Formats: sequence, structure tokens, C-alpha cells
Amino acid sequence: MTPPPFDSADQAELAFYRAFEANDLDAMMAVWDDADDIVCIHPMGPALNGRSAVIDSWREILSGGVAMRFSLEMVQIYNADNLSIHLLNEHIDVASGNRVAPMAATNIFRLGAHGWRMVSHHASPNPGTHSGKANPQLH
Amino acid sequence: MTPPPFDSADQAELAFYRAFEANDLDAMMAVWDDADDIVCIHPMGPALNGRSAVIDSWREILSGGVAMRFSLEMVQIYNADNLSIHLLNEHIDVASGNRVAPMAATNIFRLGAHGWRMVSHHASPNPGTHSGKANPQLH
Repeated sequence: MTPPPFDSADQAELAFYRAFEANDLDAMMAVWDDADDIVCIHPMGPALNGRSAVIDSWREILSGGVAMRFSLEMVQIYNADNLSIHLLNEHIDVASGNRVAPMAATNIFRLGAHGWRMVSHHASPNPGTHSGKANPQLH
Repeated sequence: MTPPPFDSADQAELAFYRAFEANDLDAMMAVWDDADDIVCIHPMGPALNGRSAVIDSWREILSGGVAMRFSLEMVQIYNADNLSIHLLNEHIDVASGNRVAPMAATNIFRLGAHGWRMVSHHASPNPGTHSGKANPQLH
């Protein structure tokens, strides 16, 4: 996994999903911006605002130890001077061999003094997107 | 309702929810960017990519004629030179007098030749956020 600092939003995003797959809280929080304006919206969850709330949520999720593998299907990217927004479908395999319903995600990255880091992750269930429909690939 | 062009992302966002409340497809699509890189993720829905798919979805939703009123609880805003991203909770009242489960939304606006317009709307159910919890207000 690419260690921080990340030279691009793509690098930060890849590290985010690798940390998720590895259930590695330290690696996960290294992806997130240190500022307190970060927001995370887990599937069917509230908007968690601030670093403390976001850390707590990932500690709980990653401590579950579920082994997941993500295949990312990029839908659209918007770039500005210091922001990069990625809209994508997450296709998820779990260790049991089952594929769970895909998620739609909006990931927002910001360029700061410590490179590109995540400031927002909004994921929601997307049962209508079938895996393989749009040739998903890990980026 | 403020007519386009919109001088700010806030104006465009207000017009978006007013069009939604009025079930006005023309007003709704005046809020959206004319470019074909727009994306809309309705609650529990797929990532609709491109103007045609987005228009079709709003035609279907708004033709239902459900009278809804939105109260917006802003969570966080990220600004760049030509992009503005708003994360918020949508508290929704319907004409029957009932309040439906709130939605978490990520709205993305872009500044172009025709002012600020929406390029992405990602909404997802957020049953954990109770109305009134954070003093929601229409902005």
C-alpha cells in the first residue's frame, strides 16, 4: 500500500480501500484529513461530522474483522484546484464467497500541506447495480 | 424562486429543493449543469450518469406529484475555485402530515459560463437522524 503523503487523490483512494480490506484503523485514519471538518456517511447511517466521530465509526467497523475485497467502478470524477471528487460503485466480495449488494459512493479528497487526503466518504446501498454490469475494475 | 443563472451554490441548491417541492421538472433541470458528466444517486438507487438518465429519473419522480417540504440541516461545506460541495441532512414533510425518514445528501455544484449549477446529487436514507435533533432550518 502506498504510504502517506499521497501525491494524488487516486493514491489516497486506493489506500482507503486497502485499509478497509486490511481492517487497519491506523492506515485508514492516515488517509483522512487531520482537520475536524471531515464527514463520513456510512450506508444507512447519519452524517458523522468531525475526526472523533469518524475515528470511532471506523474503529467499530474495522474491529468486526470482516474480510472484504472491493472492486471499484468509477462513474465520474470532478476536479478543482484543491478538491477531487470521485463518484463510484463499490462491488464487494466477502470472505464467505458471497457478493453483497454494491454500494454507491461519493469520495472527496483535498490537497493540503500533507498531500491529498480524504475529507468525506458518503456510501449508500445500491441494490439495483448488478456486479459485472459495467465491467468493474479495481483502479 | 431565484431564476437561473445562479450567483452562488447556495442559490442553486435552494432552487433545487424548491423545484423538488413544486414538482417542476423544467425548474429542476435548470438547476442541473448542461454538461453530460452529471450524476444523480437517488436513495437506494444506482448512479445515474449523464443528462438523459438524470432527466428521465426526475421526470418519473416529479410526475408522482407527491407534495414534500424540505428542511435542510447543513453539515459541512467544501469550497474550491469552481466547485462547492454541500453535505446536509434533508428533513422531509409530506402532505399527509407525516415526516418521512431523513436523507443524507451530498450536493455538488460547479461554476461555469452559466453560473453555479448542480453536477451531482447523492441522497441516501438516514433513519438514524431524528428530526429536530440539530435544530434543522431551511437555508
